[in-house]
Amino acid sequence: MSVTTPKGFTAAGVTAGIKASGRPDLALVVNNGPDAHAAAVFTSNAFKAAPVLWSRDAAADGRLAAVVLNSGGANACTGRAGLADARQMAEWTAEAIGADVTDVAVCSTGLIGVRLPMDRVLAGIELATQDLSDEGGPAAAEAIMTTDTVPKTAEYHSPHHWAIGGMAKGAGMLAPALATMLVVITTDAVVAADDLASALTTATSFTFDRTDSDGCMSTNDTVMLLASGASGEAADPEEFTEALTGVCHSLAMQLLADSEGSSHDIEVTVAGAASEADALAVARAIARSNLFKCAVFGNDPNWGRVLAAAGTVAAEFDPDHVDVSFNGIGVFVDGQLGADRAEVDLTGRDVVVDVNLHAGEATATIWTNDLTYDYVKENAEYST
Amino acid sequence: MSVTTPKGFTAAGVTAGIKASGRPDLALVVNNGPDAHAAAVFTSNAFKAAPVLWSRDAAADGRLAAVVLNSGGANACTGRAGLADARQMAEWTAEAIGADVTDVAVCSTGLIGVRLPMDRVLAGIELATQDLSDEGGPAAAEAIMTTDTVPKTAEYHSPHHWAIGGMAKGAGMLAPALATMLVVITTDAVVAADDLASALTTATSFTFDRTDSDGCMSTNDTVMLLASGASGEAADPEEFTEALTGVCHSLAMQLLADSEGSSHDIEVTVAGAASEADALAVARAIARSNLFKCAVFGNDPNWGRVLAAAGTVAAEFDPDHVDVSFNGIGVFVDGQLGADRAEVDLTGRDVVVDVNLHAGEATATIWTNDLTYDYVKENAEYST
Repeated sequence: MSVTTPKGFTAAGVTAGIKASGRPDLALVVNNGPDAHAAAVFTSNAFKAAPVLWSRDAAADGRLAAVVLNSGGANACTGRAGLADARQMAEWTAEAIGADVTDVAVCSTGLIGVRLPMDRVLAGIELATQDLSDEGGPAAAEAIMTTDTVPKTAEYHSPHHWAIGGMAKGAGMLAPALATMLVVITTDAVVAADDLASALTTATSFTFDRTDSDGCMSTNDTVMLLASGASGEAADPEEFTEALTGVCHSLAMQLLADSEGSSHDIEVTVAGAASEADALAVARAIARSNLFKCAVFGNDPNWGRVLAAAGTVAAEFDPDHVDVSFNGIGVFVDGQLGADRAEVDLTGRDVVVDVNLHAGEATATIWTNDLTYDYVKENAEYST
Repeated sequence: MSVTTPKGFTAAGVTAGIKASGRPDLALVVNNGPDAHAAAVFTSNAFKAAPVLWSRDAAADGRLAAVVLNSGGANACTGRAGLADARQMAEWTAEAIGADVTDVAVCSTGLIGVRLPMDRVLAGIELATQDLSDEGGPAAAEAIMTTDTVPKTAEYHSPHHWAIGGMAKGAGMLAPALATMLVVITTDAVVAADDLASALTTATSFTFDRTDSDGCMSTNDTVMLLASGASGEAADPEEFTEALTGVCHSLAMQLLADSEGSSHDIEVTVAGAASEADALAVARAIARSNLFKCAVFGNDPNWGRVLAAAGTVAAEFDPDHVDVSFNGIGVFVDGQLGADRAEVDLTGRDVVVDVNLHAGEATATIWTNDLTYDYVKENAEYST
């Protein structure tokens, strides 16, 4: 049920004709209240697309009544005209549902540097408004897909009679430049806007921020969280943050599993670090090493490339006492050769790499994909 | 003539049988004086191979009488036994040429995590000592090759009757993990050890340090500079640093051109930066973007991927006033679409990307390669 799992939300997904393929390409998510609380996080890329600039301002006061999303065009690097287009989308949506324009967020995904066909966008917004229903979540999740092969949704049902629902598209930038990550999450719990913001910051920092498919960062990445309060139940802050983190984790893993061109999902966990920052930096360096990612594609438990990547980071550890294991087999132990690498089977999709620095108690995990022929093919042949 | 271009040096390259292929695999470069001045720079990777640890100590006093180098085995991640092997190589070489063991540097390149066949190394050192000649430079350059398809050498002849000669192998880590970069440079100018060190730091910082084939850093990278003083001519420090930078630049470009699996050499220049650090950070982010590198492989002047990579860096600039050009064609100008990308021809091997941030006067260049099927193939199928 995606974003319409919690009470107080209606949604729709329609074909506006923005995509040449004729697949659904416009989604609308409306918060019918009683609350209109919201929080959002956006790409940290200096080149922020027009809808990101618009939505950042719209969400700044912690209030949103609706989000309108389109696939088929990113409205990025489109200058002032693109900014006007993003605002126009918000205005049309605000008129259609009877909200203030500054309470409507806009998300776009698709080609960079191309203006949106605004006549079709307008027709799509009108169509979506007519189609709004409390069962529209799945259709909305489908309409935001670009190179995704399946829609991604997740939900959580609290024993305290409130719920969370979410939808996502994209895969970092593993797929071509059109693969912006867009996420909309809804809840009917009663949560103040400030508490939504802190829960979202925590949840994304442990999930989407650590999903690093190819180290590239989109101009449009957006995660929105809307709270209707329609359950009438105030959520326990700890339960809410944990549940939200769980929903984000589920969506992040679905994004990774659907990364175009990948043949392995890789979990890199660095333990025994002197600080969490050290653990994260080492895990990220490994997850971004092309040599390591190619080795995993070749089903090779190449601890030498893990070490070479780890060694590029200014983290505190003694290189003579590091352990590396692949799928639980310790191939490098205490700075020396360990188990025979032939014992490691990497033919499955899931690969777990554990590194212990033996320098402290901190741990962090980064999720990534392997580097394959298909990755190069799709990103070389695709021209934005 | 490579390292034997300057007077006062003899060299040899022989087949010791370390490589299964039966190709030359051991090189010796001897400084016959009168000076034995030296400087060296090494990988900053925390996992330093045994020969790097040995040679760092040996070169610390600014004196070296010889360098012994082998291909066919990196002697990296080999623990205490590997350190003993590196010292043993220095001892055998010192005995053979009549030098102090602490004046002999050692370089190794090849497989990680495997001990060297020391009996063959000893036989190779004896053979190389017999073969030493003032015409041995080219043979030495050949003996250090691993996946290189051609030996790399460069030279400079000063009008003031001194010279510089150099040899190199490897390509960052573009090729599989055996592709450590090893460089030995010689000069017969009279230069004090401290002046050698500062010239080498300057020269490498503008050349090898800015050649970033795939963002991966080897455990064995080494650049050595030996001065014999045999010309009897004191070099002007400015001319010497400039000439040394030129020799390093030539060797770096040869490494890039021979990077396995690459189809384009890419020069990324960022101008108009607020500081050199900003220019470098932006250029490096672009050069390391897999999406950008795949686009170049596909002959696509994808300015969107250039911007998306540039935007990930915390550099000072206004995203609305950035220019991007490919091979001199301004495809993105002052934050807007520029010339038609169809005007850009990327079918040649050389690609020049210019970015102007319009935020200051600083400029920096990074050289890299594209990301190709062959890169993935070689690094996935090759198992260290």
